[in-house]
Amino acid sequence: MLTNNTIKKIRSLSLKKNRKAEGLFVAEGEKIVNELIDSAFEIESIFATSEWKGSDAVIISEKELSRISFLKTPNKVLAVVRIPAESNTISGETIIALEGISDPGNLGTIIRLADWFGVEHILCSENSVDYLNPKVVQSSMGSISRVKVHYVNLDTDLNNYPDYKRYVTVMDGDDYREIDFSSKRILIFGNESKGISESVLDSEVNKISIPKAQNSNAESLNIAVACGIFLSRL
Amino acid sequence: MLTNNTIKKIRSLSLKKNRKAEGLFVAEGEKIVNELIDSAFEIESIFATSEWKGSDAVIISEKELSRISFLKTPNKVLAVVRIPAESNTISGETIIALEGISDPGNLGTIIRLADWFGVEHILCSENSVDYLNPKVVQSSMGSISRVKVHYVNLDTDLNNYPDYKRYVTVMDGDDYREIDFSSKRILIFGNESKGISESVLDSEVNKISIPKAQNSNAESLNIAVACGIFLSRL
Repeated sequence: MLTNNTIKKIRSLSLKKNRKAEGLFVAEGEKIVNELIDSAFEIESIFATSEWKGSDAVIISEKELSRISFLKTPNKVLAVVRIPAESNTISGETIIALEGISDPGNLGTIIRLADWFGVEHILCSENSVDYLNPKVVQSSMGSISRVKVHYVNLDTDLNNYPDYKRYVTVMDGDDYREIDFSSKRILIFGNESKGISESVLDSEVNKISIPKAQNSNAESLNIAVACGIFLSRL
Repeated sequence: MLTNNTIKKIRSLSLKKNRKAEGLFVAEGEKIVNELIDSAFEIESIFATSEWKGSDAVIISEKELSRISFLKTPNKVLAVVRIPAESNTISGETIIALEGISDPGNLGTIIRLADWFGVEHILCSENSVDYLNPKVVQSSMGSISRVKVHYVNLDTDLNNYPDYKRYVTVMDGDDYREIDFSSKRILIFGNESKGISESVLDSEVNKISIPKAQNSNAESLNIAVACGIFLSRL
């Protein structure tokens, strides 16, 4: 049985300010919840229908699950998870930096592909979408348990990595297939419609592009797809 | 001024059966509407706020636009567009085939990147999401004016292209970087969670994969990202 208070508290976690105040976020679905249980994340509580195979859950009805779920098609289990303390140690051959990324699906997809290609750290400018937004958690498919997302002032923070070469994705940069990516690197992507800010472009960066077909009239590539193409090349 | 009948008719176009019955679909936003106006598509009517710079529009208020729009943040203009007749001529070095793709954002992103990489034709199995779904039109960013999407019985239709090699993306296939993609090819992708059906896998196909980092525990890549990585290699 779910109390109205519990329902209200869980639903309030759709908003960043409430997640921050409570120190909690929501993850849903068998795969994602199982990955978080197996990770260093601390699980606060689990609500599941009798179909779920895991333990330690409050068993609720399908109808109750649909009242607390953020999904169109709720999937057996919802976990309330403690937000981990942020670590300051950032390392790795490749770091991804996102300036003002706004689409939760794009951020989730980038976290998932960072995980695939072994990138451990993503820097986000402070005006980017929150990675604990339910839609980001969902589209990251459990990869938030392995990839660390840091919110920083990108303009100043990028100076903390003097031994990394910076690459920004623009429309008229060098063909990425001709770049020598041998040193450590930060791959910087801008907002989905506004692109990269002048202040980042004015710093010492290498501009790179993914060339399009000769007959193509397309204007841009999705940011997560572009990120995947660069990472596949490294 | 919008009549209630007009509002009702436009909103009904969120459903495929109504789009099919009326022969119409909806496109929104300056960029997409302008691309469709400049294309071979036949525009039935345009509704826009006074901010819109184009001609031949019924001028409506922001409030009226929000009543007919399918977007969270309506963007100046909405066009009702006639569904084009399907052409049966399919050609090109590369064809993309999608089996049971269900996420509108993924299909829209794939249409957009097909456009970027010069792929003109996409085959979709009949149980795939409709490419004239408002969310697909939106995420394709105008590329539906150039890329043609065909709904077919994939099991039998793939036999119509004897001079194309077939590649399916699976978890345990050959490293795509080692494939000789010199002949014409059909790139086949399965449903986001169910993958490729046995009937397609049983036909004469080459199984390929995008290798993940050695230390990676990620389980899969987003289908649109995978498609972009293959196309970038061709």
